[in-house]
Amino acid sequence: MNPRIEKLVKQFAKLPRVGTRAAGRIVIALLQDKTGRMDALAAALSDAAAHIAPCPICGVLTDREMETCEYCRDAARANGQIVVVRDLSDVWTLEKSGIFRGRYHILGGQLSGVAGTTPDDLNIASLPERIGRENVREVIFALPNTVEGKTTQHYVMSVVGTDAGVTFSELASGVPLGGDLDYLDDGTLSLAFGGRKTL
Amino acid sequence: MNPRIEKLVKQFAKLPRVGTRAAGRIVIALLQDKTGRMDALAAALSDAAAHIAPCPICGVLTDREMETCEYCRDAARANGQIVVVRDLSDVWTLEKSGIFRGRYHILGGQLSGVAGTTPDDLNIASLPERIGRENVREVIFALPNTVEGKTTQHYVMSVVGTDAGVTFSELASGVPLGGDLDYLDDGTLSLAFGGRKTL
Repeated sequence: MNPRIEKLVKQFAKLPRVGTRAAGRIVIALLQDKTGRMDALAAALSDAAAHIAPCPICGVLTDREMETCEYCRDAARANGQIVVVRDLSDVWTLEKSGIFRGRYHILGGQLSGVAGTTPDDLNIASLPERIGRENVREVIFALPNTVEGKTTQHYVMSVVGTDAGVTFSELASGVPLGGDLDYLDDGTLSLAFGGRKTL
Repeated sequence: MNPRIEKLVKQFAKLPRVGTRAAGRIVIALLQDKTGRMDALAAALSDAAAHIAPCPICGVLTDREMETCEYCRDAARANGQIVVVRDLSDVWTLEKSGIFRGRYHILGGQLSGVAGTTPDDLNIASLPERIGRENVREVIFALPNTVEGKTTQHYVMSVVGTDAGVTFSELASGVPLGGDLDYLDDGTLSLAFGGRKTL
């Protein structure tokens, strides 16, 4: 394989959810494209690398030129609630759904013995001060419904503490909409059963 | 979503085998990477866009500075055989397998009424002249084993014609190695049965 092409394929193959085969397909498509998509992608990458940085308050990736991100700048979003998420894609998911129009706090990961992620790796330390400054009354955890997610949640709760007078909440567990009981795992079924609602 | 990030996500989402969700994950991973992968990818893209072009003889993507590709330059590969493939990834697959060390002819697609691909869109016209010049004795078709692949193969054969005195061959159809009959489609089974070998 041509060394220039090989280098490009290797770089694409390192991206999440892209294997070597897909990387090859991507590079071929880009090289055969006659509309300048390759230069456009290179330019967009350089531009983002130069101008995008995490919001110093919440961690949402944003224009470096702005002091803070679009959510922290928006006074209408100071609704006394903060949603704690693992990463930016969770913010996008929530924003797309339109069910929440407040502010976020991105941890940038979750505590994990396997991955070796410790509290120092996460954006937790600034949270208590932020809660006071922004007069937050409810911290809503929207972390993965896994052992790591719950461990992280408990750790964040212990850091914030009860003195702040803030309410903690987490997303409900249960049967997903349209979910067939046949295909549910026992864990979800057990959570859904334990959390059953009287009608 | 930040406009710079949105632009980048949209460009990644246009790549083959990358959906919007995967594009988001890729962009987040790149933006959060602290080893300069983003700039490196941008540089590799610009570099390839500036320096890579199809080999004028066979269509393999190669350095523009070189007159021809690595396979056409290599005199040891002038073995009188040419493998006709749909695109560059097929060349990579064959090269990786090591079963063929000759030259290629990339059509750049296949005839398809659905996709609207006509003979003019494909790298076919130069093939007869090439066969004469390179003294090719066998044209091996390694096109997809589909209606479109076979249609394309027949068209290429008609263009080359029988006057050139060249032998045409195609890859064998049959049960893949390790293939379980339970999981074979009827078409493959029928081809394998029809092409059975006496032991």
